[in-house]
Amino acid sequence: MTRWALQLEYDGAGFVGWQRQAVGLSIQAVLEEAAAHLAEAPVTAITAGRTDAGVHAMGQVVHIDLDRDITGGKLAAALNFHMKPHRIAVVRAAAVAADWSARFSAIRREYRYVISNRRSRPALDDGRVWHLPHPLDVSLMSQGARHLLGRHDFTSFRAASCQANSPWRTLDRLDIIRTGDTVEILAEARSFLHHQVRNMVGTLKLIGEAHRPPDSMADILRAAHRSAAGPTAPPQGLFLMAVRYPEDVFGK
Amino acid sequence: MTRWALQLEYDGAGFVGWQRQAVGLSIQAVLEEAAAHLAEAPVTAITAGRTDAGVHAMGQVVHIDLDRDITGGKLAAALNFHMKPHRIAVVRAAAVAADWSARFSAIRREYRYVISNRRSRPALDDGRVWHLPHPLDVSLMSQGARHLLGRHDFTSFRAASCQANSPWRTLDRLDIIRTGDTVEILAEARSFLHHQVRNMVGTLKLIGEAHRPPDSMADILRAAHRSAAGPTAPPQGLFLMAVRYPEDVFGK
Repeated sequence: MTRWALQLEYDGAGFVGWQRQAVGLSIQAVLEEAAAHLAEAPVTAITAGRTDAGVHAMGQVVHIDLDRDITGGKLAAALNFHMKPHRIAVVRAAAVAADWSARFSAIRREYRYVISNRRSRPALDDGRVWHLPHPLDVSLMSQGARHLLGRHDFTSFRAASCQANSPWRTLDRLDIIRTGDTVEILAEARSFLHHQVRNMVGTLKLIGEAHRPPDSMADILRAAHRSAAGPTAPPQGLFLMAVRYPEDVFGK
Repeated sequence: MTRWALQLEYDGAGFVGWQRQAVGLSIQAVLEEAAAHLAEAPVTAITAGRTDAGVHAMGQVVHIDLDRDITGGKLAAALNFHMKPHRIAVVRAAAVAADWSARFSAIRREYRYVISNRRSRPALDDGRVWHLPHPLDVSLMSQGARHLLGRHDFTSFRAASCQANSPWRTLDRLDIIRTGDTVEILAEARSFLHHQVRNMVGTLKLIGEAHRPPDSMADILRAAHRSAAGPTAPPQGLFLMAVRYPEDVFGK
């Protein structure tokens, strides 16, 4: 039996998210069914981040166990063949130790949230951005974001459905960058609570539109209640960019 | 009557290209029909670049004449409303002089061609890149590209259907840039022949795969025959990024 780490890219549109649901197609189901073509028994995929419906990934990482003699390149090609025509691709595959876990070995998750901040609706990037027609003040947003850096109780930014044992997380990066009409929010942490990135973005939006002062972010954190923060930003602007491990499993 | 310059963004997939055709939906038809809602008579749109079927635009520029008292913001919003649900958007609209032409006043066209250069097929960028699984040597491609800079007879890179009077063009920029698995080709000129960018890219691909030496580009130019150059690169990797005019008509 070999454990394989897989780097996945996918377009979240049309999927119910990573995890299998009672109704609808999940990324997990497409991948596991493709892997089943290469195995004698059902295959279970364990992921570094259970992305929600509509959320995209450039650098999702998962692991599967396969009892088959195959190279990483051939495994990726075979899975990509069987996952057609779904917009999911295995970009890299690497054999890892039997106790390596895509989920538990991960030491950092990197997310990017993209906002199209212009009057007219997006045409090329429709389904890949949150369209906010009113001008966002990125410097106010950056001031607000600063309060969230470091170790905090993030209960105010946590979905009711969140299954984590603790609401404490350490946020290592929360940068807001404008390039023309595009505003990107880059968030990095060892791990995030369910909906944490989208809830932070939804709150930063209120600050960027000057509906709340940047320093209100400190009060929102302190309230430790979901209703203190802003609404959840929509999923289609969110991309899981990368997952980091102590060693670079995919090499280069 | 007011002449309006419009900056357009569109996803070329599913369109027969800019120009109206006997069969299929064109960008021109969608825009002109949206504009007809705001006019008493049919509206004709003149474009800076007649993009082919499948080619995308971030910064296409066109002009239309309208006999209607309206602001640029309201005009863009009205056209975007009527163009729904097509993936075409007016990003900016500006009133210009009656003798200004999106086509004839243009002094520079900027194109970007995107290649996904990795083993696995593109998932997120499917339909927006040319997928080339074999590693491209960008330094060979850059050496080849250098021969094309400046003023030349570009007959070898010209489609049979090209309607230009002269095959002479001045190429101001042809840069090849790799970022991870993505190779971008940036081309700028006052104007291009029909298929010129895609034919240059198709030839650079042969050089990047070491099927032809970089210096063969000089011979290909000199041959002044289409068969001397490589095949036409597919449309979905090409983006019309910007059109420049003596004055910045859209301001900032």
